Amino acid sequence: MKLSKLVGVRFKERPADCVIDSHAFSVRGGYIKQVSNGIFSLYPPMKKITQNIEKIIREEMDAVDSQEVMFPVVLPGSLWEESGRYTSVGDELLRFKDRNDTPMVLGMTHEEAAVHLARDYGRTYANYPFSIYQIQTKYRDEARPRAGLIRVREFTMKDAYSFHTSQEDLDQYYDRMANSYSRIFQRAGVPEVIAVKSDSGMIGGSVSHEYMLLADAGEDSIVLCDECGYSANMEAADTTVDNSGCTPMGELKKVNTPNCKSIEDVCKFLNTKVEESCKAVMYQLNETDEYVVVFLRGDYEVNETKLTNYLDAKVHAAVVTEESGLVAGFCGPYKQDAKCKVIFDKSLEGIENLCCGANEVDYHYVGLNIKRDIGDVEYVDVSKIQTGGICPCCGKKAIRISRGIEAGNIFQLGTKYTKSMGMTYTAEDGTAKTPIMGCYGIGVGRLAACICEAHHDDKGPIWPITVAPWKVHICCMRIDDDACREMSEHIYDELQKMGIEVLFDDRKVRAGAMFADADLLGCPVRVTVGPKALANGEVELSTRDKSVSLKVAKDDIVAETKKLVDTLYAQINEKVQDRK
Amino acid sequence: MKLSKLVGVRFKERPADCVIDSHAFSVRGGYIKQVSNGIFSLYPPMKKITQNIEKIIREEMDAVDSQEVMFPVVLPGSLWEESGRYTSVGDELLRFKDRNDTPMVLGMTHEEAAVHLARDYGRTYANYPFSIYQIQTKYRDEARPRAGLIRVREFTMKDAYSFHTSQEDLDQYYDRMANSYSRIFQRAGVPEVIAVKSDSGMIGGSVSHEYMLLADAGEDSIVLCDECGYSANMEAADTTVDNSGCTPMGELKKVNTPNCKSIEDVCKFLNTKVEESCKAVMYQLNETDEYVVVFLRGDYEVNETKLTNYLDAKVHAAVVTEESGLVAGFCGPYKQDAKCKVIFDKSLEGIENLCCGANEVDYHYVGLNIKRDIGDVEYVDVSKIQTGGICPCCGKKAIRISRGIEAGNIFQLGTKYTKSMGMTYTAEDGTAKTPIMGCYGIGVGRLAACICEAHHDDKGPIWPITVAPWKVHICCMRIDDDACREMSEHIYDELQKMGIEVLFDDRKVRAGAMFADADLLGCPVRVTVGPKALANGEVELSTRDKSVSLKVAKDDIVAETKKLVDTLYAQINEKVQDRK
Repeated sequence: MKLSKLVGVRFKERPADCVIDSHAFSVRGGYIKQVSNGIFSLYPPMKKITQNIEKIIREEMDAVDSQEVMFPVVLPGSLWEESGRYTSVGDELLRFKDRNDTPMVLGMTHEEAAVHLARDYGRTYANYPFSIYQIQTKYRDEARPRAGLIRVREFTMKDAYSFHTSQEDLDQYYDRMANSYSRIFQRAGVPEVIAVKSDSGMIGGSVSHEYMLLADAGEDSIVLCDECGYSANMEAADTTVDNSGCTPMGELKKVNTPNCKSIEDVCKFLNTKVEESCKAVMYQLNETDEYVVVFLRGDYEVNETKLTNYLDAKVHAAVVTEESGLVAGFCGPYKQDAKCKVIFDKSLEGIENLCCGANEVDYHYVGLNIKRDIGDVEYVDVSKIQTGGICPCCGKKAIRISRGIEAGNIFQLGTKYTKSMGMTYTAEDGTAKTPIMGCYGIGVGRLAACICEAHHDDKGPIWPITVAPWKVHICCMRIDDDACREMSEHIYDELQKMGIEVLFDDRKVRAGAMFADADLLGCPVRVTVGPKALANGEVELSTRDKSVSLKVAKDDIVAETKKLVDTLYAQINEKVQDRK
Repeated sequence: MKLSKLVGVRFKERPADCVIDSHAFSVRGGYIKQVSNGIFSLYPPMKKITQNIEKIIREEMDAVDSQEVMFPVVLPGSLWEESGRYTSVGDELLRFKDRNDTPMVLGMTHEEAAVHLARDYGRTYANYPFSIYQIQTKYRDEARPRAGLIRVREFTMKDAYSFHTSQEDLDQYYDRMANSYSRIFQRAGVPEVIAVKSDSGMIGGSVSHEYMLLADAGEDSIVLCDECGYSANMEAADTTVDNSGCTPMGELKKVNTPNCKSIEDVCKFLNTKVEESCKAVMYQLNETDEYVVVFLRGDYEVNETKLTNYLDAKVHAAVVTEESGLVAGFCGPYKQDAKCKVIFDKSLEGIENLCCGANEVDYHYVGLNIKRDIGDVEYVDVSKIQTGGICPCCGKKAIRISRGIEAGNIFQLGTKYTKSMGMTYTAEDGTAKTPIMGCYGIGVGRLAACICEAHHDDKGPIWPITVAPWKVHICCMRIDDDACREMSEHIYDELQKMGIEVLFDDRKVRAGAMFADADLLGCPVRVTVGPKALANGEVELSTRDKSVSLKVAKDDIVAETKKLVDTLYAQINEKVQDRK
């Protein structure tokens, strides 16, 4: 490809709306162009990158015996009614009617379509297990698209679905798929992506993992243990609190706490520890508006996903009215007479002597002992694990919270879809049984953005050679100089003959502009043909990441470039390790 | 691939709703499954076929310097408002609102998206010409989907868009693209697909061609001249009528024609020639309901696309009321007093002595001479060309009408989109100019269906080796016989090592069922390993089209199969000719 002919525009200024680097570079480098909020067209370089990623994904899916199929983007609403998701999923499912007034949806995941396709083939046990996948456009009507290809409305996703006759078989396949995912991220040049235990959310099912790139720009919070290597997303990490060594039981007393608006204010005013306070967070059930009050240790926060999972119902922050009987700012568990559901978080368990609201304006209790003063209560885990907290795996106080970007996920779905959609098979004993399912997704565009997020400098992306749009970028510093031009063309032709994809900057532009564009396009190997060096019989060979920078005799440049390309491939591919 | 593991079901009975063979085989052979009316999932074999077709298309697009990009499926309505198509296109454009009530559409073609993407790059003359393409899902809300992948609502299409600074440059590129199309169809094994001149319809523009597979099952009518090779679709073919040698001028007389309901009845009753009669076909403009009466020779039919193009307005069949003043069944051009637009078709030109309606129930005129009795009128071409008619190219009476399926099309768009969407470039002289555009489409799934339609027998598809899902199909007649199984596995392994895609029927099924499935899966080369022949040291090698059927010594079978595969490729690829 000659750069003078490459469709796309590149520019210097960071666009104001680009919060993260990968977004800024993808706009500045002529990779993507926004068509609507969260909807993008891809210019040739990004199309090439996504194709390179898709090729890796296809090879790894084939290696785990998954067969490529294609599901529609537009699906009948009736299919989603079979699974119950037509009504259970929120506004992110785009629903519309076709010209015949038939309800349709835009596929955001394809569990229903997979069951629909597999139902006939899956009628007999002899055909199990099997796995199918597609790489196809999906649409999720995000309320707040952001960060370029990270959170979009329309995206290309690889989604695989496997079908099994036993949990053991699913477990085995799930492990093979986890291994496949680990290989995909390694081959795509981001071994940094890690698997974390996750909450299954809308998709359903029990066991699931997310593949996360740790990055400050991420929107997810990931719990990591530096001691044992435990990892989970916030929703899936059990909170363990150590309340040993706290103040012994005391007398329950009501005290005046004027002008104390937060639990921190109260503790300061009373000179007590926040770790021995009990705060209240108030919600209402979305469906009935019933109040739900969560009591938890003053220094902890409610994890709303855990709360939702515990209640099996969605909630919103409470609007506290006078009639509710709740006293905002002074709500406490002792003599709580308001009509509401009360939840005690595990963080309170074991504290003998608590400070809490007295359900009366400007008053708190001190010396509350829940067991003595309220009785036996059930403690449940609805709080967020904290930095420095106790690892649920090794028990050490070694928890660290990181931000992360989700690049993929794998789920054990159980029979959620097969049962609701009436998929059965005849077992060996002649009885009808319901198969169990797994599903496995990777966002192709988001992975491209993750790779850029993980591998860039302040001038642009540094694409790993396996996904780079071109492997070699030739900068011809003086296209109007015959020697420079001929040498550049010679290298261009010879490398292409070897099957190497080359971008050749054949434009008559200043060196600064030429290098700025080369940095933005991020090809891993660069060959710079300049008149001075060439007069000395030399050409420059370097890598985008600056780890290599050599002068090479012009007669050796083609062979040396090929060697460097091979080395970069080997650095990635030879290190690909199967998961233990 | 082992057939025992291939996801999909095959069966014997032709589904009742399958009118054409390619549809029946694609359902019976486990290629596609309907998800909704005109919306299909693809099973692995069809996914492979479409990928093979896409690979050919990509190579040929690259060869004409088109760069692959990707546009969104979901587009903002505002983009289509820029071009005017948001309102001008009918119900086949699916419009809906997103969660923020923003009007959106599902892309059916991507001219607007192409201009949107190219607008920035196309700001300077120096970047022209350039061409971009995508292979992506599209949606057209067809009122009557039919015939499997032939007329669907959701489909995968390659659409390319080129941008030029002069008509000459567009002409040149259009020719290159036409050549590319011809190569694509040849390489895909359907040299039968021909280019025909077409009407541009909704897309707009002037010069355009459709690529048609002649097939009785097609929904389009194609005009062919057996003498000179002229071809066009019905809308684009000029009708020439030879009225020399007709009856000389006579006296105009009103005659009673009781119970004559059609022009044929009248001619029979009066014993005159239909070729010397003038019939009326009545329409109303969609917008104003104004009546439009077309007079044409009794044996001709109105071509409504030609009429619409002439009027530059859409029409519907007239509802003739009493107030209209029109007398249905007796409408004629002489003393026509009704308020209506009158059109004389060219088929009437030169007839001296006509029979026509007298605008009075049960009365006709005979002896009408338009020039003498009505005066000078303008004759326009709004009728359908007929079999045996005069070729507009060579003038010989050699026109034949065939049915055809459109597999692709190419259009010269002019400035329709660039002008309306404000795309301009700075010309060499510094002035702002509007680029001109071409667009070029191929329906991938429809092409797959066309290939099947052109190449099948009564047992299933006969896939050309270039697009076949697997190149070789091994039938192991006795998987429970060690010698048969080992021989089959050996062939399977060796061919795969050579990079040949092989389907291995490793099931324990009857010979009839095994061959029926092999016929339905249509792989071009078949290797049959049976116990009897193997005992004699032989294996059968044949082609799906039965042109080859050999017994081969078992030690030679791998080499001979490879040779046959190479020969089949050569038969297609060596014959690929560039267009003259």
